[in-house]
Amino acid sequence: MSGDRGGEDALVRAIRALTARAGAATGVSVGIGDDCAVLEPRAGAALLATTDLLLEDVHFRRRWAEPADIGWKALAVNLSDIAAMGGRPRWALVALACPEDTTAEEIAAFYEGALALARPHDVAVVGGDTSASPAGWLVNVTLLGESVGAPRLRSTAQPGDTLAVTGALGRSAAGLAVLERETAPAGVKAAQLADVTAAHLRPRPRVEEGAWLGAAGGVTAMMDVSDGVGIDLARLLGESAAGGRIDVERLPVDDATRAVAAALGADPIAWATGGGEDYELLLACEPAAFERLQRGLADRFGTALTAIGEVTAGTSVSWWSRGREVAVARGFEHFAGRPAASGAGA
Amino acid sequence: MSGDRGGEDALVRAIRALTARAGAATGVSVGIGDDCAVLEPRAGAALLATTDLLLEDVHFRRRWAEPADIGWKALAVNLSDIAAMGGRPRWALVALACPEDTTAEEIAAFYEGALALARPHDVAVVGGDTSASPAGWLVNVTLLGESVGAPRLRSTAQPGDTLAVTGALGRSAAGLAVLERETAPAGVKAAQLADVTAAHLRPRPRVEEGAWLGAAGGVTAMMDVSDGVGIDLARLLGESAAGGRIDVERLPVDDATRAVAAALGADPIAWATGGGEDYELLLACEPAAFERLQRGLADRFGTALTAIGEVTAGTSVSWWSRGREVAVARGFEHFAGRPAASGAGA
Repeated sequence: MSGDRGGEDALVRAIRALTARAGAATGVSVGIGDDCAVLEPRAGAALLATTDLLLEDVHFRRRWAEPADIGWKALAVNLSDIAAMGGRPRWALVALACPEDTTAEEIAAFYEGALALARPHDVAVVGGDTSASPAGWLVNVTLLGESVGAPRLRSTAQPGDTLAVTGALGRSAAGLAVLERETAPAGVKAAQLADVTAAHLRPRPRVEEGAWLGAAGGVTAMMDVSDGVGIDLARLLGESAAGGRIDVERLPVDDATRAVAAALGADPIAWATGGGEDYELLLACEPAAFERLQRGLADRFGTALTAIGEVTAGTSVSWWSRGREVAVARGFEHFAGRPAASGAGA
Repeated sequence: MSGDRGGEDALVRAIRALTARAGAATGVSVGIGDDCAVLEPRAGAALLATTDLLLEDVHFRRRWAEPADIGWKALAVNLSDIAAMGGRPRWALVALACPEDTTAEEIAAFYEGALALARPHDVAVVGGDTSASPAGWLVNVTLLGESVGAPRLRSTAQPGDTLAVTGALGRSAAGLAVLERETAPAGVKAAQLADVTAAHLRPRPRVEEGAWLGAAGGVTAMMDVSDGVGIDLARLLGESAAGGRIDVERLPVDDATRAVAAALGADPIAWATGGGEDYELLLACEPAAFERLQRGLADRFGTALTAIGEVTAGTSVSWWSRGREVAVARGFEHFAGRPAASGAGA
């Protein structure tokens, strides 16, 4: 029941060659080709582990996602999880299933896409699995990383902390809206279209920023924004048994996202809170540390850090715009003006 | 694009409760619920990592595999990989996608199935991912383990070594043949049918045996039998740049497998070499060590170890029956009497 086994061995050899070319990885005694990878953790470091599944027609469409995009993104979403703990990514296991008629070139392109993001972060692909799929492409990446200091958790935000987010939000949702259309929206600059579609297809997780923030001091809690800050903030505050007050006007939304939203008659704030897949870092920090962290990210990485609200006592999470409490649930409900539907753990 | 997010959070809470009930796991600082699991490797141990994908209608059918069976088997195939290195399993990450109409009870049963096998081996489920699937159930388990001594590899068999296998072969293929039929084969005892179907649905990986063999001395190479000893032996010998000579008559095939084969007019030897999914251990050992290893496995675990041939110089792998060389390729080609088609790396 496992398809063409001779072909499977040939595929394993090809993947092994491809991943070996990525350079001599540190901390790898045995890579692809045995029953397990054999790895050498750093003494005293905590081991971080995360896994994510990407499915065709759930997380991407082959109409607009090339194999290299799928490989890139499958690694990116896991890198973002390691970054969110303040850790360093080290080793990836990549399991791929694709239809019988997938070519060797498409499979190689998938791995090249993953390796294009793995290489600059010194991540080695050390294992995997391959299978025929009866229904489209599916990928599972497990990423292992290390944290020399204590990892940053979701559950340790304190009332009074400043809530802040890196980069800009809603870019991925804007890109998805463009990709899902038959034709490009009129009146948006080509560079802006390219920018937001790349944000969706090939997100750049905040790997260096996360490692720096984890060690910089003053960050009390951190997570990545994968499902939208609307739900992710509720998760962070829920795990911390705290509440929060967020100023919708301060959510960072860039010009490209606003231009695409204007062209499509969409709400960029709804994309920012509910769109998800931005892979920015969401953090709570001591108020006195905020400016230092903001300056550090700007100076070292050219990355913005924006304060969007504060952690409060209790468990109520409220979103405010122009002095009124507004509702954000899963997706942002367009300044509905009714009582906020979201709350910790909801 | 990620389905019912409120439902997803509820599911994560349910899984967290389920896995937490499994008891306080050692070496887990942070389990399910944050961006990553935070784990504490033992100082000086090598870290082992393996991942396997199980897909509906490729690796199992829902007609005969219950959610608990799927959970059990997804963990079992990975436990077998850790055992094959002579390591100890420690931490599992379980990613599950299933159709929108899957009930909470079915998902809980899946995790209970995995935990029923995890618990006795002190394996903690520390992370995962959940998604809706447009096409059936699919599971990816990544298992992490540790090896205090040097892990047993595929690539280190030496000419003159004895080739041996634990337990019996072909049981899983016999079980699959029964499960795939509309009606049970006539003339086979109910206990034998139950035995072989359990071997397919809920294989018992050789976890304790593998850890013992890894430390016992005299084992020069080891792997698990997942695709059938026909292809897996060629892989072990290929990685070792060696050949082998195997006596087909000595392959261990039990009475239940023979009874089912007789009832179905099938060849039990073809099941033994080509059926796969037996999750027995295949090893090369110093000839002088064989009897000690055999006795050790029998005394400690009641597990058989059978010598099936020897490692030879060169790269030719030959299979012999009643003094004649016979062909085994992917599946065993029924004593065809023509020159062996398989070879190292083929």
